[in-house]
Amino acid sequence: MTESIDLRCPGFKAAGIACGIKKTGRPDLALILSDVPAVVAGVFTTNKVKAAPVLLDMKRVKKGRAMGVIVNSGNANACTGKDGMKAALKMTGGVEAALGFAKGDILVASTGVIGVPLPVEKAEAGVGPLVGALSYGGFNDALGAIMTTDAYPKAALASGRINGRTVTIAGLAKGAGMICPNMATMLAFFTTDASIGKAVLKAALKDVVDRTFNSIIVDNDTSTNDTVLIFANGVSNGREIKVGTPGYRAFCKLLFQAASRLAHLIVKDGEGATRFIEIAVHGATSAPQARMAARTVAESYLVKTAFFGGDPNWGRVMAALGRAGIKMKEEKVNITFNGVPVVRRGLDTGKEVEAAHAIKVKEVLVRIDLHMGKSDATVWTSDLSHEYVRINSAYRT
Amino acid sequence: MTESIDLRCPGFKAAGIACGIKKTGRPDLALILSDVPAVVAGVFTTNKVKAAPVLLDMKRVKKGRAMGVIVNSGNANACTGKDGMKAALKMTGGVEAALGFAKGDILVASTGVIGVPLPVEKAEAGVGPLVGALSYGGFNDALGAIMTTDAYPKAALASGRINGRTVTIAGLAKGAGMICPNMATMLAFFTTDASIGKAVLKAALKDVVDRTFNSIIVDNDTSTNDTVLIFANGVSNGREIKVGTPGYRAFCKLLFQAASRLAHLIVKDGEGATRFIEIAVHGATSAPQARMAARTVAESYLVKTAFFGGDPNWGRVMAALGRAGIKMKEEKVNITFNGVPVVRRGLDTGKEVEAAHAIKVKEVLVRIDLHMGKSDATVWTSDLSHEYVRINSAYRT
Repeated sequence: MTESIDLRCPGFKAAGIACGIKKTGRPDLALILSDVPAVVAGVFTTNKVKAAPVLLDMKRVKKGRAMGVIVNSGNANACTGKDGMKAALKMTGGVEAALGFAKGDILVASTGVIGVPLPVEKAEAGVGPLVGALSYGGFNDALGAIMTTDAYPKAALASGRINGRTVTIAGLAKGAGMICPNMATMLAFFTTDASIGKAVLKAALKDVVDRTFNSIIVDNDTSTNDTVLIFANGVSNGREIKVGTPGYRAFCKLLFQAASRLAHLIVKDGEGATRFIEIAVHGATSAPQARMAARTVAESYLVKTAFFGGDPNWGRVMAALGRAGIKMKEEKVNITFNGVPVVRRGLDTGKEVEAAHAIKVKEVLVRIDLHMGKSDATVWTSDLSHEYVRINSAYRT
Repeated sequence: MTESIDLRCPGFKAAGIACGIKKTGRPDLALILSDVPAVVAGVFTTNKVKAAPVLLDMKRVKKGRAMGVIVNSGNANACTGKDGMKAALKMTGGVEAALGFAKGDILVASTGVIGVPLPVEKAEAGVGPLVGALSYGGFNDALGAIMTTDAYPKAALASGRINGRTVTIAGLAKGAGMICPNMATMLAFFTTDASIGKAVLKAALKDVVDRTFNSIIVDNDTSTNDTVLIFANGVSNGREIKVGTPGYRAFCKLLFQAASRLAHLIVKDGEGATRFIEIAVHGATSAPQARMAARTVAESYLVKTAFFGGDPNWGRVMAALGRAGIKMKEEKVNITFNGVPVVRRGLDTGKEVEAAHAIKVKEVLVRIDLHMGKSDATVWTSDLSHEYVRINSAYRT
């Protein structure tokens, strides 16, 4: 599904090792580290039940400066109370002490089973070997150590000219739906050598996350641990990127390129997914309305099972639009499935056989024209298969 | 699943026949009729895409008086444009003409495939035989003619003393999740011989529907055709039931009894359902908050697949609460599964093995104590099984 990428980013080292949190003995501890203090920004789960590492990072990114992030897989350190926060502080403190950093210089993320105390002594014992393994070519090892039930690693690399310098963005992510049986999580980490300030980086990340990770729907649950971080260390030595400039737009474009690649890889790795589905809503009265319409269709169990079955059941799309709470008029709606018009002005076009043929492929584009206004939105999702139920009903053993 | 009931209600006749709308030749046309003009109230789908019969009924119930309702199965008459409204008017007009009623005396409901023109000439030709088949014992025939993919008929009978008279409520319903492959619908019809005014009947119906049909969640879709109607013909000759009196409370109790029976039968007939799940939220800061919390848990794909797998995965319940948009504090939450405490003050109780044993039964009660306030809500749902995906991904043939 993903080609192998030589993931590197100027001025960043990474490492991934096995420290014993995963019972399988597979890699479960990763570190991404900047050579010099980096500007940092983050986007976190909106779930009110937030894991300890999320709560700690939310505090630390406010400063806008950090050296890197330590990540463990195999345990989410979520719903673990005060001991959970102590464990998160021990993980970051271990790296800070080993490298002589100040308290607060290292961020942390966790993914894995929820409600089980993190065996933090294993992570602490792993810090020495982890720091020793750091290298400029270590990103793929780090990527291996953040995976849980992912079917394949998810990496992206984007580079381009910004303010006269070549700027690189490397991204690594884990996630496959709301991955279970381990109640796991979407994690994504970006590194870049761009020169950019704290507020500008934060704005760019938020904008891009909205259009990528927040526009994918594998199921309707959000995790306790979802985290996206970006570190910008400025070693490209370019002029600082300012909001509203061509440099800013170029940076957002690069970041979108990397993030949308990772987001699509996550959807395609949706548990049991057999089809990748793009829902594009046009002609809504506002951007939030367009987004709500697209999300409601993408979240419909019935739409997702119909696509799994290769059934061009536009009635389910129409019914989802009807309950989306948006401004719409049934008699104005046009719908196409992979270019085949199935609904025109709210009525069946009689092209069911043609549409059934057109959607029996790996990627399906559902285009909805509301003809109510000028706003658009696109979300990506997958179908809902037997395999999804099998994976998610399997007992946690 | 449901015992056979001799469904009768004083002063009401019913009938069900096959008129040829269903290709299988099974019964598909029903009529429920009062001997005398009845007070009528209705609750309809909130979906903005409403079928023609829904739009027509919404207008007609405003008058508050009707003789009865004609129902067809096999075609939803939804997304059928102006011809759909003409077809609905022909169905009601046929009965009105045959029985010498005024225009507007008959309501109409349809259930079945969406977006396909209703072969109304078949329904029109069926009106004669349908009217001829009317009898006081015809409710079960009517029930048979409103079913689509229902695994069994759904009937309920409640009676009790109100204002010194014996009052009967008979209910019949169809629905099994958002029944597909026919994009079908939840329909419920109640008849009663109670003496009750239009506004009071409307209030009672709304109250009871909120606590029954609107408190069941099989999947997160609503239909274009959902309809609940109640006809009260007053032939019990009791004193008229007034709001705020013991008689009103007794009537609501009877109606709740019949409606909750039908609602639970619909959940148990949820496509592929193997477990009936009650989600009871206590200690929310308001009733809407309690309801939102319960609904969000009940709608979670992950919670539903976990119960299918017999997995006491409380982390999924906690994560659903976290994204419900309600006031909560993780460290105050208690959760029990069939009486076994799995979470206390936000933390695991270590009773996973015991809980796994306790939920391997047909009915599971999830009790959630938020400890934030005094409001409660209960919703009912089913698990999400392989069979759900199989049924809903099957091509419509």
